[in-house]
Order: sequence, then C-alpha cells, then structure tokens
Amino acid sequence: MTTSTRVPQEERTRVMRARLLEATVDCLVERGFAGTSTTLVSERAGVSRGAQLHHFPTKNDLVVAAVEHLTEKRGRELAEAAAKLPRGEKHTRAVLQMLADHFTEPVFSAALELWVAARTDETLLAAVSPLELRVGRETHRMTVELLGVDETKPGARELVQATLDLVRGLGLANTITDDAKRRERILDRWADVLDDMLDREI
Amino acid sequence: MTTSTRVPQEERTRVMRARLLEATVDCLVERGFAGTSTTLVSERAGVSRGAQLHHFPTKNDLVVAAVEHLTEKRGRELAEAAAKLPRGEKHTRAVLQMLADHFTEPVFSAALELWVAARTDETLLAAVSPLELRVGRETHRMTVELLGVDETKPGARELVQATLDLVRGLGLANTITDDAKRRERILDRWADVLDDMLDREI
Repeated sequence: MTTSTRVPQEERTRVMRARLLEATVDCLVERGFAGTSTTLVSERAGVSRGAQLHHFPTKNDLVVAAVEHLTEKRGRELAEAAAKLPRGEKHTRAVLQMLADHFTEPVFSAALELWVAARTDETLLAAVSPLELRVGRETHRMTVELLGVDETKPGARELVQATLDLVRGLGLANTITDDAKRRERILDRWADVLDDMLDREI
Repeated sequence: MTTSTRVPQEERTRVMRARLLEATVDCLVERGFAGTSTTLVSERAGVSRGAQLHHFPTKNDLVVAAVEHLTEKRGRELAEAAAKLPRGEKHTRAVLQMLADHFTEPVFSAALELWVAARTDETLLAAVSPLELRVGRETHRMTVELLGVDETKPGARELVQATLDLVRGLGLANTITDDAKRRERILDRWADVLDDMLDREI
C-alpha cells in the first residue's frame, strides 16, 4: 500500500473547486461576464462538466463563488503584505500603494464584471449584494487598522471611507487605460492629506 | 403651400438621431451592454431598422454615439446648474454634491456598461478611449473652474483629480446599493479637506 500517494477525497475536491474558481476569474478577466460560460470554465479548468455542475449548478453560482474565493485569498495576501509595510513617515503612502494595487489587479476587473452584471440581473444581485457588503466591511476594518485611525475622532471614519472610494475610483479609471503615473501623484498628495488631517500618533 | 408645417430634412434627421441615442442609453441602463441590441433600440425609438442602420451601422457605433451624446447633454446641464450654485462657505460642498449627483445618474450606469464592455472588446475600446479622454479633460477643466482652483500651486491639480476619482468611486459604490446616506457624510468631510488644503480666496 502506498498511502503517501493517495490524496483524500476531501482534498481532491478542494483542489478541483479551487481550479474551477480560478479558471472562472481568468475567464471573467479575459472575456467579461457575457463571454464567460460554465462550459468554457470546465474546459479551462480541465474538470468534467458533470463534476463542475455538481459543485456549481449555474453560472451565477460559479461567478459569485469565484469572486468570493479570490477576494478572500487576496485579503489574506494583503494582510500578510501589510505586516511588512515600513513604519514611520512613509507608512501612509505605503498603505495607499497597497490598497491601490489591490484595486488595479485582475481580481478587481473580475469583481467589476460581476457588480456591473448584477446591476441588471436580480438573481445575481441577490448573491452579490451580501458579498459586496462583507468585503466592504472587511476592507474598511483592515484600512482603519493599517492607517492606525481612531474612528471615535470626528471625521476620521469618513476619511477612511473616502480613501477607499478614491482607490475604487482609481481602479475604475485604470480599467481601460494605463493610469499608473497619474495615480502615483494622486496617492502622494492623498498621503499628505491623510497625514495632515488624521490626528494620529504614528 | 404650408411651409410652416414642413420640417426641414436636417431637423427631422437630428430629432431621429437624438431619439435613437436616447433609446440606446435607456437600453444600456435597463438591460446592460449585453442586453442591448440594435433591433431593440430601433423598436424602442420607433425608428425603422433601415433608417437606424443608415445612421449607425453597428451596435458599437450606436452605443458610443449614445454615451457621447448624453455626456455632452449632461455636461451642458451641469454647466448651467453650476452657474446657479451658492457662493461663500457652502460653495465647495455644493460643487461636490453636483459632481456626485452627476456620477450617480443613469447616464453614469450607461457609461459604466460601455467602459466595462470596452475592456474586453478591442473595437469598442478604440472608440471609447478617445471619448473617455475627452470627457475626462472636460470634467477636470470644469471642476477646476467650479472650485476656483489655481493649478499652478503645488498639489492643487492632484486634489482636483482625487476629487473626481472619489466621485467616480462613489458612483461605482452606488451601482448596486443605494449609498446616498454614506455618500453625504463623505462629501461633507471631503469639502472640509478641500477648504483646508486648497489655498484659495473664495
């Protein structure tokens, strides 16, 4: 018996699901929501149609799970990267860079495809809304922590929210143009504003 | 001869084009890019297929012209509204409200559909890119004027850009949720930031 080469069923399932979800995000990024189909995804992931349909019966199940999966994965990577950020006077700028990078990555394009499709698709909307809420809260919480903000101070919470809306806007601006240079200068300026306006002890 | 009831051909064409373009925007807003077709638009506008195809041979021609048409129309309305804004200490906040309203209107959803579709469609991208550039410049110019910003001062230009990226981000946040209350508080705070950081004589 070579038990070492036998992968438990549970692990095989987990790997297969991850492969399906990553293929879905790739599909959304490359072809958009309308160009993504369950057939295309199962081909791309090298997973049989039967297995794919068993785990994700509809396209909506697949795309929502995919964006959720990638967002959580990226969230964990972000938290790890955050722990390594420089302290001191460059800290705010480094946090902004990390956030802006997050909102200009391919997973942002996949999420954008989902949000926009959900706008005109009630079934999809019902699945996407709670995900958006949860991701939004989690990103806010992390940003508060990263920037060392005391949200009990008047106006502090709104500055954190504005920061996230700003990077979301920068993400959108980057969707069809390479906006990196302009973005750099805006983030430099915004870091100054935050350091001025947020009354913190760094 | 009843010349008064005869509408010149040129005027009839102009009206018909406007009807087609407005029907296209309605279609984009209600059904999204994928759900918009030239057949649907000509039915909705009450314009014959032949006439529609004569003026806009492809779906791409139609959607790009439609978003351009509506953006220009809204730009003119914005400029008129801007002239009536209150002066004095409430001015900055009023300008922000106007901009945020602009980015949460249906025409923003139509533009968003177009931007996102262009991301994965080269032909559409080639038509949308110059439009985005032009609209972006025009909106920037108008915002500088409205906020009374002297862009030769260091960091002033970047604050105007950040303001527009913020309202774009707020527009996106409002796409699938009604975000009005949160937006109010963020704009209040942003107005304080601008009044603090922009060294202006109002």
